[in-house]
Amino acid sequence: MSKRQFWQQLESAPVGQEFAVEQLLEQLNLDSAGLIPAIAQQTQTGEVLMLAWMNAESLAISLAEGRACYWSRSRQQLWRKGESSGQVQWLKNIKVDCDGDSLLLEVDQQGPACHTGRKSCFYVGLTAKAGTPAQVLTAPLISPDELYS
Amino acid sequence: MSKRQFWQQLESAPVGQEFAVEQLLEQLNLDSAGLIPAIAQQTQTGEVLMLAWMNAESLAISLAEGRACYWSRSRQQLWRKGESSGQVQWLKNIKVDCDGDSLLLEVDQQGPACHTGRKSCFYVGLTAKAGTPAQVLTAPLISPDELYS
Repeated sequence: MSKRQFWQQLESAPVGQEFAVEQLLEQLNLDSAGLIPAIAQQTQTGEVLMLAWMNAESLAISLAEGRACYWSRSRQQLWRKGESSGQVQWLKNIKVDCDGDSLLLEVDQQGPACHTGRKSCFYVGLTAKAGTPAQVLTAPLISPDELYS
Repeated sequence: MSKRQFWQQLESAPVGQEFAVEQLLEQLNLDSAGLIPAIAQQTQTGEVLMLAWMNAESLAISLAEGRACYWSRSRQQLWRKGESSGQVQWLKNIKVDCDGDSLLLEVDQQGPACHTGRKSCFYVGLTAKAGTPAQVLTAPLISPDELYS
């Protein structure tokens, strides 16, 4: 069965149908660099915290350790979220999208997710109203200096 | 000023600081294919609906028309969400992340966002609990046949 067939077949599977985690992981559509985008969303509040990237290894680590582990594209290495700041993302669930090429992580973020000290990385806003300027939406909860000291 | 400097400088800007939309758009970090990932989140409920991709043109169209327009990587063309299904995403706000390389769209999704007829594309779940199988989480609101008829 091709990956395409796997995801197509799932579309009509009943709610609650179970299958092996290993099978699902094999069917993910990673990009040419072996990566898949992962959205981190705060459980309970639904706030979207950040978008980062995983490879097969970081995803397996996340599931095994119950905390988000990404692949840092800038540092080209595994990145256990919070390893230098203490701001761990405890992992509750992962949802996979309909064609297996993006992930949604439900996490319990300890402190700020953003390296600027903000809860969420998405802190600059635009609107679809003509003539409205962009603006800074939120302030840091703690200073980055304190975060990484 | 380099892009890196632009985003660094914003980190310490006060809440409410305004700047031109054009300036922000110029500073976005698109990937080597000219694309940036865009998360669509349902306003009010906070449900994450999908992840898709935008290029500079589709982003400008989204802001001008007040509805989400993506770049379809599979069809290599502009994709006004809902153009064939009627399931338009009315655009409320766009948030940009701290290094300008991903977008969060707050939208009012008409009907299902997913081509399978589900509200959200993220309909398959995994947990970090060892031994727990993956499973199908939600059912279509309407059949895909009806959606695209």
